[in-house]
Amino acid sequence: MVKSLRRRGVNVSVVHGYLSEESIQQMKSRGKNIKTKDGKLPFTAMGVSSVIHPKNPHVPTIHFNYRYFEIEEADGTKQWWFGGGTDLTPTYLNKEDVLHFHQTLKEACDKHSPDFYPQFKKWCDDYFFIKHRGERRGVGGIFFDDLDSPSKEDLLQFVESCTKAVVPCYVPIVMKHKNDPFTPEEKQWQQLRRGRYVEFNLVYDRGTKFGLATPGSRIESILMSLPLTARWEYNHVPPPESREAEILSILREPKDWVH
Amino acid sequence: MVKSLRRRGVNVSVVHGYLSEESIQQMKSRGKNIKTKDGKLPFTAMGVSSVIHPKNPHVPTIHFNYRYFEIEEADGTKQWWFGGGTDLTPTYLNKEDVLHFHQTLKEACDKHSPDFYPQFKKWCDDYFFIKHRGERRGVGGIFFDDLDSPSKEDLLQFVESCTKAVVPCYVPIVMKHKNDPFTPEEKQWQQLRRGRYVEFNLVYDRGTKFGLATPGSRIESILMSLPLTARWEYNHVPPPESREAEILSILREPKDWVH
Repeated sequence: MVKSLRRRGVNVSVVHGYLSEESIQQMKSRGKNIKTKDGKLPFTAMGVSSVIHPKNPHVPTIHFNYRYFEIEEADGTKQWWFGGGTDLTPTYLNKEDVLHFHQTLKEACDKHSPDFYPQFKKWCDDYFFIKHRGERRGVGGIFFDDLDSPSKEDLLQFVESCTKAVVPCYVPIVMKHKNDPFTPEEKQWQQLRRGRYVEFNLVYDRGTKFGLATPGSRIESILMSLPLTARWEYNHVPPPESREAEILSILREPKDWVH
Repeated sequence: MVKSLRRRGVNVSVVHGYLSEESIQQMKSRGKNIKTKDGKLPFTAMGVSSVIHPKNPHVPTIHFNYRYFEIEEADGTKQWWFGGGTDLTPTYLNKEDVLHFHQTLKEACDKHSPDFYPQFKKWCDDYFFIKHRGERRGVGGIFFDDLDSPSKEDLLQFVESCTKAVVPCYVPIVMKHKNDPFTPEEKQWQQLRRGRYVEFNLVYDRGTKFGLATPGSRIESILMSLPLTARWEYNHVPPPESREAEILSILREPKDWVH
């Protein structure tokens, strides 16, 4: 499998310190009621994240991140929440693969609540939106943040189910396509799509922005999510009815893959 | 010359409309005293900008942009200013080239004020700073904004001198190096540096951010500044004493090239 990978990494992080004023504002804007003491807010965060950008354009990119966050308010009370998600970014649409990916995530979610998959599937489509392109980064998956009910134990079990779904949702797709032949044109389309991946991560991704704005953070870990190579062409428009146009239309109007 | 270019473009734009609340705040934070009427602020802007990313790693990237901005306040009074600059981004350091580039820009500035070059050279080093890397994008040049004195006519003549300096500051460098042989390793270093160019433009560049945040703007024109291809590698550190380390040290601590 290693031979077919182009760039991949796994980050495991446990960090604590004081949140920046910017991060506090960002959390408040998401609806959190936070009482700071002299503007200071101690936090602890831990998580695992990974991105795999394969070499072969018929093997999609996968990204996942699961994290636990805790802040201590002025009066000593603690707030905590879970966040995370798993999402797929193919260069070409293979409906069977996307169905398998979403179905596997749905099963992981359904074990915990029937509301989770529909809610977190939509959240994923909304989050990975490249606004200036009017496109999603990929075909989605699940995404959630600020989860703090019903209980820490229930949510930890849910997140565990999500992490256990990573291998079964992705590895069968890798195995199926890792030896698919590809043309230079297909490789080039993959590179253009990787340019969009870079645009999303550098312009919109909350985790990347948080990292770049935090003094002393490990830049190489934060930018590990970027592909090995990417490409930009002026006004590139794939021909109608092409396989390139097919995936673009899905990125512009996400589908419900499973019900 | 065209054969040696990899990606280049020229944008000429004349736009008018109402400024977004975000843009007004941004201008106020730069020290402008602006009186809006019901939050509305009509503006007119015009400019020319260009980026050339050559194929050969021994030919540097050039970028220039010159613009005139006008806003109409609630009481009908108009504020106007000029902004712009020209800057060079080599993959490898060639001191003679950088000296020629800065010297040509200095001569254009000196015709108008002895203060311009030292002031705008520093402004350029400060502006094109990739904060999360602790590096400048390139070896600088000149950059200025919000220029509104001594008079519109004087400043227009200054900006004209700057635009007339673009060809003499850059084309001799292209002619000198366009047939230089290069190795795959040199090409790869160029690609890594282009990754940093992408990082600056998407994360920090004010013009790019203004464009991406403005509804209805031409995305392809705004992102014309990105290179054709770029590359990221985890924790890439060039060997000490190498030509790659040489240019990095200049990007970390800008030099005064001419006095």
